[in-house]
Amino acid sequence: MKRIIEQSFSVPFTYQVIFSENVFDKEEGTLANLLDNGKGGKVYFVVDSGVYEAHPNLLNQIKEYAEAHSDKFKLCADPLIVPGGEASKNDPAYYEQVVEATHQYGIDRHSYIVAIGGGAVLDMVGFAAAVSHRGIRLVRIPTTVLSQNDSAVGVKNGINFFGKKNYLGTFVPPYAVLNDFNFLLTLDDRDWRSGISEAIKVALIKDLSFFEWIEAHAEDLANRKMEPMQELIVRCAQMHLDHIAGKDPFEMGSSRPLDFGHWAAHKMEHLSSYQIRHGEAVAMGIALDSTYSYLKGMLTEDELNRIVTLIGKLGFSLYHEVLSGEMLLKGLEEFREHLGGELTIMLLDQLGKGVEVHEMDESLIITAVEKLKSFQADQLIAN
Amino acid sequence: MKRIIEQSFSVPFTYQVIFSENVFDKEEGTLANLLDNGKGGKVYFVVDSGVYEAHPNLLNQIKEYAEAHSDKFKLCADPLIVPGGEASKNDPAYYEQVVEATHQYGIDRHSYIVAIGGGAVLDMVGFAAAVSHRGIRLVRIPTTVLSQNDSAVGVKNGINFFGKKNYLGTFVPPYAVLNDFNFLLTLDDRDWRSGISEAIKVALIKDLSFFEWIEAHAEDLANRKMEPMQELIVRCAQMHLDHIAGKDPFEMGSSRPLDFGHWAAHKMEHLSSYQIRHGEAVAMGIALDSTYSYLKGMLTEDELNRIVTLIGKLGFSLYHEVLSGEMLLKGLEEFREHLGGELTIMLLDQLGKGVEVHEMDESLIITAVEKLKSFQADQLIAN
Repeated sequence: MKRIIEQSFSVPFTYQVIFSENVFDKEEGTLANLLDNGKGGKVYFVVDSGVYEAHPNLLNQIKEYAEAHSDKFKLCADPLIVPGGEASKNDPAYYEQVVEATHQYGIDRHSYIVAIGGGAVLDMVGFAAAVSHRGIRLVRIPTTVLSQNDSAVGVKNGINFFGKKNYLGTFVPPYAVLNDFNFLLTLDDRDWRSGISEAIKVALIKDLSFFEWIEAHAEDLANRKMEPMQELIVRCAQMHLDHIAGKDPFEMGSSRPLDFGHWAAHKMEHLSSYQIRHGEAVAMGIALDSTYSYLKGMLTEDELNRIVTLIGKLGFSLYHEVLSGEMLLKGLEEFREHLGGELTIMLLDQLGKGVEVHEMDESLIITAVEKLKSFQADQLIAN
Repeated sequence: MKRIIEQSFSVPFTYQVIFSENVFDKEEGTLANLLDNGKGGKVYFVVDSGVYEAHPNLLNQIKEYAEAHSDKFKLCADPLIVPGGEASKNDPAYYEQVVEATHQYGIDRHSYIVAIGGGAVLDMVGFAAAVSHRGIRLVRIPTTVLSQNDSAVGVKNGINFFGKKNYLGTFVPPYAVLNDFNFLLTLDDRDWRSGISEAIKVALIKDLSFFEWIEAHAEDLANRKMEPMQELIVRCAQMHLDHIAGKDPFEMGSSRPLDFGHWAAHKMEHLSSYQIRHGEAVAMGIALDSTYSYLKGMLTEDELNRIVTLIGKLGFSLYHEVLSGEMLLKGLEEFREHLGGELTIMLLDQLGKGVEVHEMDESLIITAVEKLKSFQADQLIAN
């Protein structure tokens, strides 16, 4: 006897990505309403140490906010503070600490974990929330440009393992994302700038008008003007959300995330022992693959100049010594492995239009690196 | 500025549940075709020690099968053997061993893990596959009645942690499920019988005609006739698959799995230190909640008698000493916590029709236990 049952169903997911300010003001009901499960649900906060240092009053604010909204939710314990940045993903102890807390405080599937921090902390907490009880509700409060416009609005989480980025993780949408622009005010300049590269990335591969908008606002963005930054974040987040919703959100087929410039960026971060931040590496990765696109005859010289000029104007470096040498090319092979055998790299056909290729010419990559080095030298002279 | 983006998308999932025999015969292309990703994909096997002991030639068969189908897939390492039963879920070392193997052998998102065994091993391997690289394709080959008709066709995986069942896990559908009825031939009588209780469970809450079919075939099922067992498995699996696909597959709302009789079953397993098998505990749990339904005036005496007679006829016990005493009632409270605050218990309104209630009368549960004890005594006298 042979029988086959074809199982087929769709799982609908919905969540709000809210752009706001002063989310811990007692009069602000947004967060309290998100945390109201109708049964006075339990809530557990995890806070990025970088955010805590820049906002030493935050734990008091959380406590007072919870007291003011005790009809809607209750804190089940004091907030947990974990190291900011990749440290939180590199040492599994922090992930285990969050899992342990869910057990210790009886945080169930109808309770909430609220994670406040940069992308790395949100990734780590998200993984712990996703696997405890097969999924506790996670509210993300991203505090950096990068997490607000990119990583925190999506459906991934994870920690690093075996020295590999995001080796352990899941695809699980958040319960909600609540961006508080006020957290951007205390970012250092590198973190303020870093997230802009993800906006340049989506603009370059998808939307010429957005690229031109960034060009027009480059000086204001570099000078930390809040209004254009908020606009940039919302537009960039929207494009990421549309990409995720558009096709294959959990990347089960061959669908790719928006990773223009990322093969080199991942390798550069690693080669610099994470001294280069993700957004800085992405900026150089974009410059590299744009230059490669130009050398391949896909972009005009004028188009390439506009890209490197914009990146330089925003204060990014175009070149770092880790770009030179054979190690960078290993990043290409690792990216191929990461993709499961076939290499797929996004290049540019024109400003606002990405195109996928399945091989790269190594000698041309080396030429592109040399060109970046001279771009960088020109920029240093110009400034 | 306050802006809200409503993110909304559906993720489609499809997988085949195949009922077959002799899947490792070289002429049988079914498994090889499942493992053919067009690029000669890597495949890693994990085998339940109980299955290996009953089929000592299995590893050779796997090797020869892979050689015969080397155009479609290749083994990336020797199969891993892990302990059968809850042991594989209780000690995280086995989960870690599978994760470690994905790293060591470069098993990526386009590769496959094939897990052969009972429900516990499939749960454990499934969790490791789900979180490595955010999801490696998992082909389940369930080898027990219980896993073939119930646990292995669904979308859950997990391991036990903090002494709590399935504390860590995810909702991730398998790549495919391949049932090989031949594995049933070597089950001991307890395992053969155990899975039947899940069929009685779905029949009682959903389908009178299926219940009557089981009544009509009880003797053949007890006597290990293969034909009715295959029919029972396919019907039961179909009902589970329909339930999952029907509404809220990932249990994000208040949707419940088909867990009639399960609140007591979970507690009994634990109280007996897993000496009582899941299916045996479910049979007693069904008898208990049916008796409770009768005492509540929801079932007639004749209906109750048909249920306990069928359970007894199949060779199940109706009573175990762990049912007596206060510890059982703690299971009710734990079930409430597991559900996140509100208790929801399935009872019977009539044969083939379940109904949910939100409280249980503890003294009536104790009376029901006493009644089970006397049913069991009657049955011992009758046999």
